[in-house]
Amino acid sequence: MENAVKIGVIGCGSVAMGAYLPLVQRLQLQRYPLELVYACDLDASKAAAAQEKFDIKRTTTDFEEVLASDEVDLVLVLTAMQAHGRVARAALEAGKHVLVEKPMSMDLEEAAEIVRISETSKGFLLCAPHVILSETFQEMWRRVHAGDIGQVHLARAFYGWAGPFWGRWYYLPGGGPLFDLGVYNVTSLTGLLGPARRVMAMSGIAIPRREVDGELIDVQTEDNFQILIDFGEATFAVVTTGFTIQRYRVPGIELYGTEGTIQMIGEDWNPQGYELWRNADGCWRVYEQRSLWHWTDGLRHLVECILENRTPIIRPQHAYHVLEIMVKAMESGRDGTAKEIESSFEPPRFDLEHETVAAHLRHDPTREE
Amino acid sequence: MENAVKIGVIGCGSVAMGAYLPLVQRLQLQRYPLELVYACDLDASKAAAAQEKFDIKRTTTDFEEVLASDEVDLVLVLTAMQAHGRVARAALEAGKHVLVEKPMSMDLEEAAEIVRISETSKGFLLCAPHVILSETFQEMWRRVHAGDIGQVHLARAFYGWAGPFWGRWYYLPGGGPLFDLGVYNVTSLTGLLGPARRVMAMSGIAIPRREVDGELIDVQTEDNFQILIDFGEATFAVVTTGFTIQRYRVPGIELYGTEGTIQMIGEDWNPQGYELWRNADGCWRVYEQRSLWHWTDGLRHLVECILENRTPIIRPQHAYHVLEIMVKAMESGRDGTAKEIESSFEPPRFDLEHETVAAHLRHDPTREE
Amino acid sequence: MENAVKIGVIGCGSVAMGAYLPLVQRLQLQRYPLELVYACDLDASKAAAAQEKFDIKRTTTDFEEVLASDEVDLVLVLTAMQAHGRVARAALEAGKHVLVEKPMSMDLEEAAEIVRISETSKGFLLCAPHVILSETFQEMWRRVHAGDIGQVHLARAFYGWAGPFWGRWYYLPGGGPLFDLGVYNVTSLTGLLGPARRVMAMSGIAIPRREVDGELIDVQTEDNFQILIDFGEATFAVVTTGFTIQRYRVPGIELYGTEGTIQMIGEDWNPQGYELWRNADGCWRVYEQRSLWHWTDGLRHLVECILENRTPIIRPQHAYHVLEIMVKAMESGRDGTAKEIESSFEPPRFDLEHETVAAHLRHDPTREE
Amino acid sequence: MENAVKIGVIGCGSVAMGAYLPLVQRLQLQRYPLELVYACDLDASKAAAAQEKFDIKRTTTDFEEVLASDEVDLVLVLTAMQAHGRVARAALEAGKHVLVEKPMSMDLEEAAEIVRISETSKGFLLCAPHVILSETFQEMWRRVHAGDIGQVHLARAFYGWAGPFWGRWYYLPGGGPLFDLGVYNVTSLTGLLGPARRVMAMSGIAIPRREVDGELIDVQTEDNFQILIDFGEATFAVVTTGFTIQRYRVPGIELYGTEGTIQMIGEDWNPQGYELWRNADGCWRVYEQRSLWHWTDGLRHLVECILENRTPIIRPQHAYHVLEIMVKAMESGRDGTAKEIESSFEPPRFDLEHETVAAHLRHDPTREE
Repeated sequence: MENAVKIGVIGCGSVAMGAYLPLVQRLQLQRYPLELVYACDLDASKAAAAQEKFDIKRTTTDFEEVLASDEVDLVLVLTAMQAHGRVARAALEAGKHVLVEKPMSMDLEEAAEIVRISETSKGFLLCAPHVILSETFQEMWRRVHAGDIGQVHLARAFYGWAGPFWGRWYYLPGGGPLFDLGVYNVTSLTGLLGPARRVMAMSGIAIPRREVDGELIDVQTEDNFQILIDFGEATFAVVTTGFTIQRYRVPGIELYGTEGTIQMIGEDWNPQGYELWRNADGCWRVYEQRSLWHWTDGLRHLVECILENRTPIIRPQHAYHVLEIMVKAMESGRDGTAKEIESSFEPPRFDLEHETVAAHLRHDPTREE
Repeated sequence: MENAVKIGVIGCGSVAMGAYLPLVQRLQLQRYPLELVYACDLDASKAAAAQEKFDIKRTTTDFEEVLASDEVDLVLVLTAMQAHGRVARAALEAGKHVLVEKPMSMDLEEAAEIVRISETSKGFLLCAPHVILSETFQEMWRRVHAGDIGQVHLARAFYGWAGPFWGRWYYLPGGGPLFDLGVYNVTSLTGLLGPARRVMAMSGIAIPRREVDGELIDVQTEDNFQILIDFGEATFAVVTTGFTIQRYRVPGIELYGTEGTIQMIGEDWNPQGYELWRNADGCWRVYEQRSLWHWTDGLRHLVECILENRTPIIRPQHAYHVLEIMVKAMESGRDGTAKEIESSFEPPRFDLEHETVAAHLRHDPTREE
Repeated sequence: MENAVKIGVIGCGSVAMGAYLPLVQRLQLQRYPLELVYACDLDASKAAAAQEKFDIKRTTTDFEEVLASDEVDLVLVLTAMQAHGRVARAALEAGKHVLVEKPMSMDLEEAAEIVRISETSKGFLLCAPHVILSETFQEMWRRVHAGDIGQVHLARAFYGWAGPFWGRWYYLPGGGPLFDLGVYNVTSLTGLLGPARRVMAMSGIAIPRREVDGELIDVQTEDNFQILIDFGEATFAVVTTGFTIQRYRVPGIELYGTEGTIQMIGEDWNPQGYELWRNADGCWRVYEQRSLWHWTDGLRHLVECILENRTPIIRPQHAYHVLEIMVKAMESGRDGTAKEIESSFEPPRFDLEHETVAAHLRHDPTREE
Repeated sequence: MENAVKIGVIGCGSVAMGAYLPLVQRLQLQRYPLELVYACDLDASKAAAAQEKFDIKRTTTDFEEVLASDEVDLVLVLTAMQAHGRVARAALEAGKHVLVEKPMSMDLEEAAEIVRISETSKGFLLCAPHVILSETFQEMWRRVHAGDIGQVHLARAFYGWAGPFWGRWYYLPGGGPLFDLGVYNVTSLTGLLGPARRVMAMSGIAIPRREVDGELIDVQTEDNFQILIDFGEATFAVVTTGFTIQRYRVPGIELYGTEGTIQMIGEDWNPQGYELWRNADGCWRVYEQRSLWHWTDGLRHLVECILENRTPIIRPQHAYHVLEIMVKAMESGRDGTAKEIESSFEPPRFDLEHETVAAHLRHDPTREE
C-alpha cells in the first residue's frame, strides 16, 4: 500500500497477540491503510509466532533494528513494563510515532524527559491507557462538566483481579497492580476531575509467594493498594487496586456531587454506560452503552491522527501527571505521610454533543454498520 | 407491671420520637415488660410531646432528676452527640443500665474512663451502633471466619447522605458524618476483621454554609472523609463518609479475600443480605434477607440481657476502639500523617449456625410470626 | 371509646393473626379509634388465641352471633376462601361494614348478588386485594395515563410461590393459586388498563399430592396457570401464577407501550417502586419506593371512609370483574377456547399528583414520622 | 484455496452485510478455509456493494445461477422471509449445503417437503436460529436435565423490539415478529423442554400504519403476540413477542421447577449467562458468561461439519416442529381455540461437561486466545 502506516511491534506477548494485533486486523478489514512490517521480541519464537499468525513482514530480537528501519512509521511499545520508558524514548528520538503501553516509564525523571522530547519530536507520542476515548467516559465528562451532579466532593475507583499467572516482571519492582491496573483509575479520575494536589496511600505485599509461568516466585513489589487523592476544595478520591481481588460487582468509577451522583456501569477499561442520580430527577437514570470501544482503541485514534496530521487528544502531560501520582502513592505507602503533587496538565474537553441513533432503534448492538 | 424494666429517655429529638420510642411500643405489644417513666429534654415542649405520644409517666428538663430517680432502671442517652459522654458517665455512676447513642463520647480520655467505670458498674453499658446484632452481619462474620473468601486483604465501606437539615450540633465540633454515619462502617469492619493498627485520612469542609432548622449556618467541623485503616498483614480498608452524598447504589461493606469476595446488600445500618463469590463456586451467590432487624435493636438486646442477667455481646471496649480510630482519623485528616491505634478489643464471635426456615418457604416476610 | 369503630373478626387463621390484627394494633398506636370486640373461629382455640394476643373482648365459634351483635360496626371476613361469599353477604345484610379477603366469592351469581346488595346496603363493602391503594400502583397509573409510555399493547404479570403447607382448603375446589395469588395480578392489570374483553388459559394440576398440615393430601384443584387477557385494540396481557414456583427475580407487573415501558420493582402485593423507559429519555429511570404500604392497607382505608363517611375507592364492581376473569380463565383452561368477559367497571382514577419530600432527603425510610 | 468451502450468498441485505459476511471474514482470519464466490440479490446494486466490501468473486441477480454453479458448495439463504422456503429447497435439490435464516418456510407442507429432501440430500441443511449452540443454552440444558430445578411446570420467554424501519416484507403476510423474533424463544423452549403438545394464542395488529424505508405503509400481518405452549404434564410456557416493545429488562428465558428456578441473563439471541435458584442452596447463583457466541454461529458449526463430514447438531426436524408451533399459534390467534401440535423431534443432548478456565482467571473477556 502506497500511503499505509507501517507498524513495528516491540514485544509480542499476550498484549500484542491477544489485543493490539487483532485490532490491526480489524482495522485492515475496515480499510484502514496499515501494514505490519516488524515483529520484535527478545524471544525469537514469540516474534515468529506473531509473524505467522498476523502475516508480519519481518522479525527481529533487536528493537534497535526496528527503530533504525526506514520502513517503520509507528512503533507499538508492548514490552514488559520495566522497558517501556527506554524503548519509547529511543523510538521518539528515532523519529517514529509511538504508542506506549502503561506506564510510559517507571521513573519520573525519565518520563519528564520523554514528555519534553515529545513536544518537538517528529512523531506523536500516545501513552496508554486510552480510557478517555470511550463513549462512556466522554458522556460522564459531559454530565459532570454540565453541572448535572453539582460540585463533586467524593469519588471512588476500583480495579483489580487475582493477578497474572504469567510474566514474572509483574511481580518485580516497577511492576505491580498500581502501574498495571490502578493506572486506569487514576487516568479516569484526573480526566474527569482535573489535576490532583496531594496523595496518601497504604500498600503492601499481601501474597508474598505466587506461582507464575509454572514456578513459585517471591513477590518483590507491592501487590495491594488503597490510595487517597486530594483534588483540592475538599474533594477526595480513593483508588482501590490489587492483585488480591478475585471478583467484584461494583462500579469502576463513582462520583458524588452536591446535586447528584454518577457512576460507571462496568469498569473504566471496559465501560458499559453509566448511572446518574440528580436530586432534581428523584430517580436513577440508567444509560446502558453496549459499546464496541476496546481498551486498545488508542491505536485507531493514533492512526487517524497520523493520517490526518492532527494532534492526538490523549496528551503526554496527562500520562506524566498520572505517573507522578502513582510514584508518590508508592512513596506514601512506604512512609505514611501525604505527598504533594507538583505537576499539572490541561484536561481534555469533550463539550460537543454528538449525534446518535435513539437507543430503542439500536436493536442489535453486535451488528456491524 | 411488677418486674418491668423502667426506662428514662434523655433527649426527645427525632432519634427518640422516630426510632427508639416506637421500638418500645412494638416491644410492649410483644409483651416485653417495659415502662416509660421519664421523658427528659432541655426543651420542655419536646419532652411534653414525647409524653403525649408515648404515654410516658413524667417529664423533666433536668437529666439529673432522671438519674436520681429510684423509678428508673435503664437510661437511653439520645441527646446531641456532644453531651453523650457526660450523661452516659453520670448514668452509669448512678447505677443505671445505659444505652448511649453513638458516639459514646467525643473525647478519648472521657471514653476510657466510661469504659473503666462500666467494668465494675451495677448497670450494663451498651454503646450504639448495634450493627453486630443483625442477621446479615452475623452471617457475613461466619462466612469470613469459616474461610469462605480466604485471607481478606482489601475492604471498602460506605455510608453518607446529604446531611441533616435539622440539629445545628451536627455541624459543630464533635458532630459531623464520621461520628454520625462512618461510625457504623468502622464498627462493622472491626467487628469483621478485628482490631485495627493504623489509620490515615483526608478530610475537609466541603460545604461551608448550610441551611439548618431554617437558618443559614457556618459549618464548623469536617463534613467529608476518606479514611484508610490498616489491619496488619497488608490488609487495608477504606471508609468513605460525608454529608456530601446525595444517593448511592453500592454495597455498604465489601471484603476482598484470596479465595473470594463478600459484600453486603444494602448498608450496615439497614442490611438486606449479602453476596458471596468463591473461586471454587465460579458464581455469585446472592443471599437476600428481608430482615426485620432495625438499627435500634440494641435496646431489645439490652432489655433481654437485663431480664436474664447476662452480659450484652456489644462490648464497651469495641466502642472505645472504634472511637480511637475515628479520633485519630480526624487528626490524620488535619496533619497528613498516619496514626497508630493503641487500643484493642476482643471481637465478638458468632460461631453457631442457627436454625432457619428454608428461604423459599418464607413467602411473606411482612407477616408476623 | 365513644365513637370507636368496633370490629368483629371472622376467621382467626394466619391472615388474621399475622397481618390484619397486627395492623389494628399499629392503627391503635397511631390513635385510630378502633376496638376489637369479637374473635370468631370454627375452632374455639384459635378464637381464644386471638383474644389472648390482641385483647379482644369476646370470642365465639358462630359467625351469626357476630353479625347479630349491636356492638359490631365492621366485620373482617378472613375465613377459608370457600366461605367468603356467604359470610360477606350475611354481614352486609346485617347492616355491617364489610372487608372481605379475596376472592369475594367463588361463584359469579353469588358475587353479583353481593355487589347488588352493596349498592344499597347500610355498610360499605370493601373487597381485597387492596393493591390500588399502594403508592407504587398509583404512580404507575399516573405514568400510564399521562401517556408516558404511549399506547400499551403487551403486559405481563407474575405471582406465585411453592404453595401453603397449611390450610387444606387451598387445594380444594374454590382454592388454588389463581384465587389466592393471581387475583392480585388481575386486579392490578385491570386497574391500570381498564376492563378486559376476553380470556384464554392453560391450567392443570402439576403436583397431585402435597403435604399439608403434616398430612399427605390429594390436590383437587388446579395449581398451575398461564392466562391470557385481551383488553381490546390488540392489547394482550399474560398472568403467570402457581403453587409451582420456588423463587423469582422478575417484575410483578410489566407494561409495554408504543413510546416506552414501565415495570414494577417487586410485586404488586409488596411493591417497591417502578422502572420507566421512555424512548424520548433514552434511559431507564429507576424510582425506588421503600414504602410502608402493606397488603392489609384496605382496612386503614375502610376505617377512614367509615369515620369520614365517604365512599371507598376500591369498588365492588371491580372485584366482580376480576372474579369473572378468573372464573372464565378456569373454564378456558378446561375446554381450550377463548371466553368473552361480560362485565365491566369504572376504573379508579388517581390523577392528582401528591406532594412528597425529595427522595434524597428521605434518609431513613424506617423512621416513623 | 484448494479445499476451501465455497460460499454463495443469496440475499445481500442487512443480515448478510452486518452479520454473516463479517463472520466469514472473522473465520477467514482464524484460518478457516472459506471462499466467497457469489453475491446474489434481486437488487444488483446490493450485490455489488457486498462484492466490493467483502471481496466476493462474482455477483448475480439470479439465484438459479448460484445454484447451478459448480463453484458453490454452501448456500446462505438470507433473502426476505417469504422466499426462504423456495430457495432453500432448490439449493438442497441442487446438491448444495444450505444455511437458511428463519423461518425455513412459511408453509408447513413446503417445510415438511424440505425436511424430507434433507434426509437424503447430498448437502446438509441447517436452519436458523442457532441458539442451541450457545454456551449459555447448553449450560442451562445441563442444569435442567441434571434435575437441578426439579420438574419444570412454568416457563416464560420474551423477545421483541420496536420493529424494523426497513424491509417492507416484515409487515406482509409471512413476516411479523413471531417468525422473526419469537422463533428464537420457541426454539429455546423446545430445545430445553422437548416437543410441545398444544398451543393457544392472542394476536393482532397493534400498529396498523408504519414508516418503513421512508414510506408510510399498511401493516398486513400481526405485529403483536402472546402465545401459550403446553408441554404436557401440566407444564405451560408463554412466549411474548411483538414489534410493539421499546425496551425491556427481563430475562429472555425463565423456567420454574419444583426444586428451583433457572433464568437466562440477557436474551436467547444474545445470552450472557444464567441465574439459578435451588431450594437446597437457599440463594441465587449468578453465572455470568460474557461469551463471544454470536447468533450467526451456526455458519461456523456448519462449516466445521462440512470439513469434518459430520452431521450438524441443529436438526431440520426441530426447525419444522418450531414452525408448526408458530403456524398453529397464528391460527389460534385468529380463531380463539387451542391447537394440537402433531409433529415431534428428538431434542439435542449436551450431557458432557466441558473443561473451562476458572472464572476468576478469565480477566479480560475481550482478549483473543
